[in-house]
Amino acid sequence: MSLDDVLARVDTELPAAMDRLMEFLRIQSISTDPAFKADVDKAADWLVEDLNSIGIAAEKRVTPGHPMVVGHVGDDDGDVPHVLFYGHYDVQPVDPLELWNTPPFEPRIEDTENGPVIRGRGSSDDKGQLMTFVEACRAWKEVHGSLPCRITFFFEGEEESGSPSLVPFLEQHKDELKADLALVCDTSMVSRGVPSIASQLRGMLKDEFTIIGPRIDLHSGHYGGPGLNPLRELSKIVDSFYDDETGKVAVEGFYEGVHEVPADQLRQWQGCGFDEADYLNSVGYTQAHGEKGYSTLEQQWARPTLEVNGLWGGYNGAGSKTVIPSEAHCKITCRLVGDMDPDKLRMKIRKHVEDRLSVDAKVVWDNDMEGSGASVMNITRPEFEAARGALSDEWNREAVFTGMGGSIPVVGFFKSILELDSMLIGFANDDDAIHSPNEKYDVESFHKGIRSWARVLDALTKR
Amino acid sequence: MSLDDVLARVDTELPAAMDRLMEFLRIQSISTDPAFKADVDKAADWLVEDLNSIGIAAEKRVTPGHPMVVGHVGDDDGDVPHVLFYGHYDVQPVDPLELWNTPPFEPRIEDTENGPVIRGRGSSDDKGQLMTFVEACRAWKEVHGSLPCRITFFFEGEEESGSPSLVPFLEQHKDELKADLALVCDTSMVSRGVPSIASQLRGMLKDEFTIIGPRIDLHSGHYGGPGLNPLRELSKIVDSFYDDETGKVAVEGFYEGVHEVPADQLRQWQGCGFDEADYLNSVGYTQAHGEKGYSTLEQQWARPTLEVNGLWGGYNGAGSKTVIPSEAHCKITCRLVGDMDPDKLRMKIRKHVEDRLSVDAKVVWDNDMEGSGASVMNITRPEFEAARGALSDEWNREAVFTGMGGSIPVVGFFKSILELDSMLIGFANDDDAIHSPNEKYDVESFHKGIRSWARVLDALTKR
Repeated sequence: MSLDDVLARVDTELPAAMDRLMEFLRIQSISTDPAFKADVDKAADWLVEDLNSIGIAAEKRVTPGHPMVVGHVGDDDGDVPHVLFYGHYDVQPVDPLELWNTPPFEPRIEDTENGPVIRGRGSSDDKGQLMTFVEACRAWKEVHGSLPCRITFFFEGEEESGSPSLVPFLEQHKDELKADLALVCDTSMVSRGVPSIASQLRGMLKDEFTIIGPRIDLHSGHYGGPGLNPLRELSKIVDSFYDDETGKVAVEGFYEGVHEVPADQLRQWQGCGFDEADYLNSVGYTQAHGEKGYSTLEQQWARPTLEVNGLWGGYNGAGSKTVIPSEAHCKITCRLVGDMDPDKLRMKIRKHVEDRLSVDAKVVWDNDMEGSGASVMNITRPEFEAARGALSDEWNREAVFTGMGGSIPVVGFFKSILELDSMLIGFANDDDAIHSPNEKYDVESFHKGIRSWARVLDALTKR
Repeated sequence: MSLDDVLARVDTELPAAMDRLMEFLRIQSISTDPAFKADVDKAADWLVEDLNSIGIAAEKRVTPGHPMVVGHVGDDDGDVPHVLFYGHYDVQPVDPLELWNTPPFEPRIEDTENGPVIRGRGSSDDKGQLMTFVEACRAWKEVHGSLPCRITFFFEGEEESGSPSLVPFLEQHKDELKADLALVCDTSMVSRGVPSIASQLRGMLKDEFTIIGPRIDLHSGHYGGPGLNPLRELSKIVDSFYDDETGKVAVEGFYEGVHEVPADQLRQWQGCGFDEADYLNSVGYTQAHGEKGYSTLEQQWARPTLEVNGLWGGYNGAGSKTVIPSEAHCKITCRLVGDMDPDKLRMKIRKHVEDRLSVDAKVVWDNDMEGSGASVMNITRPEFEAARGALSDEWNREAVFTGMGGSIPVVGFFKSILELDSMLIGFANDDDAIHSPNEKYDVESFHKGIRSWARVLDALTKR
């Protein structure tokens, strides 16, 4: 029995693997919205059952939030690493629902100009991605009777809602979750068909505030003129976050802890196959809009941001309402790089807002919003080179080390709590529309993703 | 039989009149929201039946939108004016519903430090106000057996949703609706207990636009940095509407057609009993926030505004969503004064927005939003002095001519289409929270309002 047998098994099993994924995608596991609590739970149960069906001893573990799924298989063997595989089974909300062409939780295969895709919420982020690893294990087990190394499976149901239970859970289960290396499948390829290992991640800071003007909603005839309008106030403050000349964030001290990318790393990124025109044009941009003097890749991977993710106040129904509302609301997230400290940054941003409030305006902050710093992977470990070779073989193209614009806070916690390095390999494409309507995952990503993990497992466990 | 008999009848009938108003207020006649179409219709039916019960031949008249209610009573008599009474039976939406202390359509009497109030949507604007006139007519009829002059009743169900059917209806029913003078009860008193006749109204311009950035919602990790965020774009544009130094609107040509208030009128306004501290403090302001160099009354009555009434985009649910949304939305209204031309102003505002759009941002306008200019009443007509005397008698305080921050477009159309002057007398107070949660109407406004109209009818028809 050889790797080729496993790969052949992956190929013949593909239709059944797709059916399993479809079943998983039908579960509406939106973790941020309490209305879907039972669905999130159902997705955890589905995973437990699926792992059990491969002979992996898996359990759902209760937390104060959504459950974790933990599974174990195999025994320690000093010659090969014990890996922990991480993914998340929860998904983003689906709004705006009216922009979906098909119902988000009725997944289907669609033909597109780039080949067939699996359409539905979670198909790429992260159910489809996590199943690439599970399906690779299934094929391996079916061919070999056992897996090639000890594997701990660790699936989270709160990744899209700030992972409130993650740190306490890791701390309480430190011993159970220790391993030699974490494998994470929640990232994308730098360009279609270019296998990619993420070597750094941006961190994330979330915050939310409400500007309060008058005590009650006012009539814009009776109070228009003398009245302070919190929507105007909020617009002034949001606008003041930015310096339009330089494209920089204008919050004092925002760039503390940010480092320039070393020249050799920049050169490597420039040769990594990133298709800038496609990245921009596919979503309707003719140019990059970030900091002047930085390449598009640097803006995405190595520069921090302050982004408004939601902004609302006043009347938004049909027709018109002549109101000066009492409140205006704003949700923001920052992407952090280098040594930016989320707690210090939060204070700087809050000070920026408070310093700019007009007389008679107040601000109220949501104090339940978390933050985590940026992460840099330990790519000098031999497993990284082994995985790079395996990926290059599967995709017939040299695999690359890339940066990542997104944030996967668990990577930082694996390091700080479990002393565990992570290797991030993912097969998503930039046009997957994750977090957006009409999310999809290429069938190629799913199929070659499974084959890639089989090859990586083989490479990591070669004696 | 004398005026005193009518006033006595108003006093004894008050409980029954309150019951009738309560019944009327229970009908959810929100005209701007299509979901309430049947309720708006029901309110029209209620009015027709109530007018019929006083012996007024009233009918519901179909329009392409919500119906009009038209009623006639009495014959022309050259010695006394034929009056047309106007009010509107539709109400504002109730959102944000969670800020109401009691259900908006379950009206009730509440005791407050300023005496008992009728709490509920429409209690002040405009069901309570229009019923003051209807109840005055009922009392008069019951005492005298007939009304003192020919009266046409004209009630609209689209005042809170831009009156789309009003102009065509007035044009089609020009002959039927002609009268000597329009009486309108949809305004407030300059201060509690100070009877007021509005001598000028601001006009109104409505507009709505959507800023479109990326083609789809984007992940703020993948695109944060290079991505143009329409929420930031919208904030920049809204902020650019204003000059914070002067408090003026910064749209080029905005003040074209605006005139300074003549010194004698300003002096009169300053003596009209306006309680500036109460006006500001009652809603939580310590100062006026409009144009520097203008008094609070001028800012409210005689200066134009550009107000944001609604602003929304991105995620506004529980928790966080790391999205760069595709769209950001904004509803605005302007209050117009003097000779400001709504159509020209609309073009100036649109140009201002379009001139400030970043590369890759687009704007889409809603072309269904209407506008109408400011109105100045013909207060030299003898009816104004007669009414002023009647009001002064009822309230034991000299009635005053005031400006008005609000807009009542029908007044302009009565003039332009029916060649009809309007006299605006209303009994609302500034703290009525019209268009806001917990709207109320003082029982004193209702009671003395009915008595006031009885006195005004008497004064206008004295031979």
